[in-house]
Amino acid sequence: MEIWHKMKIDKFNRSEAKNQKPCLIWFTGLPGSGKSTIGDKLEQKLTEFGKHTYLLDGDNLRNGLNKDLGFSNTDRYENIRRVSEVGKLMVDAGLIVIACFISPFKNEREKARKIFEPGEFYEIYLNTPLNVCEERDPKGLYKKARLGALKNFTGIDSVYEKPTNPELELDTINHSPDELVNQIISLLNISHE
Amino acid sequence: MEIWHKMKIDKFNRSEAKNQKPCLIWFTGLPGSGKSTIGDKLEQKLTEFGKHTYLLDGDNLRNGLNKDLGFSNTDRYENIRRVSEVGKLMVDAGLIVIACFISPFKNEREKARKIFEPGEFYEIYLNTPLNVCEERDPKGLYKKARLGALKNFTGIDSVYEKPTNPELELDTINHSPDELVNQIISLLNISHE
Repeated sequence: MEIWHKMKIDKFNRSEAKNQKPCLIWFTGLPGSGKSTIGDKLEQKLTEFGKHTYLLDGDNLRNGLNKDLGFSNTDRYENIRRVSEVGKLMVDAGLIVIACFISPFKNEREKARKIFEPGEFYEIYLNTPLNVCEERDPKGLYKKARLGALKNFTGIDSVYEKPTNPELELDTINHSPDELVNQIISLLNISHE
Repeated sequence: MEIWHKMKIDKFNRSEAKNQKPCLIWFTGLPGSGKSTIGDKLEQKLTEFGKHTYLLDGDNLRNGLNKDLGFSNTDRYENIRRVSEVGKLMVDAGLIVIACFISPFKNEREKARKIFEPGEFYEIYLNTPLNVCEERDPKGLYKKARLGALKNFTGIDSVYEKPTNPELELDTINHSPDELVNQIISLLNISHE
């Protein structure tokens, strides 16, 4: 039998074919701070720009890969660990990955950052005050948490640790979603093809 | 604040941008049956054809996402479950995904198939006889297993359940790797752009 020559397709090949620098854009913030909304808008803009993206969030993770996990601290750690590892595989696939998770613990976010190469991980903090998030309450979860029907709810009876040195901090009160997306696009140094 | 309009980028958008039909190509077979070799060659060919791919295997899974798992039956089930869920996310990202795993249990492979849409999952059986795999022994693992230094080794002291109705069965004895890759390309109905 012939000797099978290995010439693995790697991150460089996969990125080059997509004409982009793959990275993970990690949104963190309280429930209702605007992570999914800004994430969606960012993905739309990147797609307009001809970029190849994927968005990871509770919807596609908690119903599939992480459906065995709850909301205890241990399970939250494992949730974020798996998300970061999936993000890493997708960055290896050459994609621009957007992750939208409360990810309340600083240490877990730092662990996530560490598995990426320098310059591949962007931590973006949705700095929306608790009272504004609670007023928006898009899924009615704050109300449930205040009634005690939902335990370990971040912002109410579970802690959120703010990032001290994120790549970007977004002010969702004084800026429109489009302005915020443009701030991210500038940070990523991406322009229309 | 303006109402934020949601127009999620979906599998259709992501696939169209890549000019391909995303799918998961699942290689199963004994250790040393040729899964990684054929998987690599297939990825090279698909890349030549302008397709966007990713290859999942023990190397990138067992060192990252699945580094908490061993080789007990329970851990093997969980390994395959996670691989299939990651594959599903990547198919949702519009990629052609190649998975190279022994995946010895029929039931676990069937569970993996079920999370995909019809026509998205291709089970490809590397039908290489045990004695040939053991003779090749590319990583020296059969030798270790025969000496008892490696427990739960598929083919030796752990069962491999052959697929009964795979999309394709490959004969690695009488066909060259290039011929086998061409068989897969035909099955996928992919041609050079």
